[in-house]
Amino acid sequence: MSQTSYVIGHQQPDTDTIISAIAHARLKQAQGEDVVAARAGDLNPETQFVLERWDVEEPTLLEDATGEQLLLVDHNEHSQTVEGARDADVVEIIDHHRIGDVETSNPIRFRNEPVGSTATILTGLYDEADVEIDEQTAGLLLSGLLSDTVVLRSPTTTETDEVVAERLAEIAGVDYEAYGKELLKQKSKLGEKEPREMVLGDFKEFEFGDADVGIGQIETVEPAPVLEQRDAVLEAMDDVVAEREYALLVLLVTDLLEEESTALIAGDHTDTVEDALDTTVEDREAFLPGVMSRKKQVVPPLEDAF
Amino acid sequence: MSQTSYVIGHQQPDTDTIISAIAHARLKQAQGEDVVAARAGDLNPETQFVLERWDVEEPTLLEDATGEQLLLVDHNEHSQTVEGARDADVVEIIDHHRIGDVETSNPIRFRNEPVGSTATILTGLYDEADVEIDEQTAGLLLSGLLSDTVVLRSPTTTETDEVVAERLAEIAGVDYEAYGKELLKQKSKLGEKEPREMVLGDFKEFEFGDADVGIGQIETVEPAPVLEQRDAVLEAMDDVVAEREYALLVLLVTDLLEEESTALIAGDHTDTVEDALDTTVEDREAFLPGVMSRKKQVVPPLEDAF
Repeated sequence: MSQTSYVIGHQQPDTDTIISAIAHARLKQAQGEDVVAARAGDLNPETQFVLERWDVEEPTLLEDATGEQLLLVDHNEHSQTVEGARDADVVEIIDHHRIGDVETSNPIRFRNEPVGSTATILTGLYDEADVEIDEQTAGLLLSGLLSDTVVLRSPTTTETDEVVAERLAEIAGVDYEAYGKELLKQKSKLGEKEPREMVLGDFKEFEFGDADVGIGQIETVEPAPVLEQRDAVLEAMDDVVAEREYALLVLLVTDLLEEESTALIAGDHTDTVEDALDTTVEDREAFLPGVMSRKKQVVPPLEDAF
Repeated sequence: MSQTSYVIGHQQPDTDTIISAIAHARLKQAQGEDVVAARAGDLNPETQFVLERWDVEEPTLLEDATGEQLLLVDHNEHSQTVEGARDADVVEIIDHHRIGDVETSNPIRFRNEPVGSTATILTGLYDEADVEIDEQTAGLLLSGLLSDTVVLRSPTTTETDEVVAERLAEIAGVDYEAYGKELLKQKSKLGEKEPREMVLGDFKEFEFGDADVGIGQIETVEPAPVLEQRDAVLEAMDDVVAEREYALLVLLVTDLLEEESTALIAGDHTDTVEDALDTTVEDREAFLPGVMSRKKQVVPPLEDAF
């Protein structure tokens, strides 16, 4: 490649997106390519903790990707890409989500696998390329894997994720259950957040047919402080729906220990939520036992319903 | 999987599409899955020769995929899928083309690599799954690889294709240069074809922005018999443009030995062809030295131009 390329994850970056950008850029650099890690937004507290813990610098903030060469990690739909990505040249995609709407003119490598994290796939790519995973990189990859799979408890978790987690933990020199608990604590640092931050902190936009739909998620070991502020949170959700002309906004408040979610609803499509998720919405709230994964348990039925 | 799934390639199937369906179904069956090989249309003479040569039955014709589970091979855009694919459940994609418009609700495996054939990628998947490639399957995979890369001469050919071809030839017990020449001869059996068959025999449809564009290709070691009938062929092209409301139809007549193509043009966008392919169209014909690959040398510049 003649120009510097950027490895970049989705907007509202989470830990798997950030560490995937870093780890994949390192792999490409080890193969002699001119590639740097980038990010499409601010780091959340969990990701800040991870980068401090493993003593790694945060990726470059890329504000506009127009004209750039991009390697997309952890997403493959334009509603989630960095600004300007439609006018950039996408040269590679590594992801573990549904197949979205990013198209290319040329044949490129697109590696999508239905596993728990992009970090899991990247670990395999290091092996394929015969590049050694050092202690620090293993720590980063393990963090992405444990964060996205809620320490291997999410229903998105596969046998491959379990095998890879054990191996990465050994290289990184940590006990993954204990380290995972530290991560979960960081995820739950929500007490001091503003309602709008709670809604948009881990947020994804989708186009389901003609409808623009936003789905936020708060993963926590302590849902009470969030649900106690539900009226203020619902007000913030209404503001977002009005500003962005959403047909629907769902905020999942996911209890990581009880493995269940409470959904708060804004927008006009309460019926669609009830049909799609087989639940009852009362007072703009629905209880979803067993639901932990936005990607696997909420997006597909909502898309089908719209 | 609870229902039988179909591995299926693109419409107007070529050898790589048909043998990929067969070889991938065999791999899945070896892993205990209920998967059968299918096809979206009639076999061309080269593919018929290959199946006879290796004594393999042709895949099931799938006329309508509505409601079925599909594993797509050798394509990933809806303009090329079997009828009904928009209302089917796509559960896996293995391909080597540009990233197209097939979307899914759930995360699935999508393996796209910029190599010369889908057969090349499938050979790697056998290795990953630790499933042995028998002599017959090696013969099929080698046929797809040699057909799509014009016996490793097309500019889409990579080092990986070369390594894989040598290995498959050894397992299949053939000399790949000699076997490749036999295949090329089959490709060239065009003398007795009707002009309309020449246009639509190896044909792909694209949506470039708002424009529907058709690009056909005749790969031959003897272009003269085709070009001698150019007026009848152009008339057939005009009919197709009128019926399907194309903005443009390009027919590439590719000389496999000289490694060059002559393009015949129908539709209103002659200027776009001149700009995109950096050529001059005279009397509805353009000469394209060095052009052998529709996918790599014609589709990307045309898409950019539209």
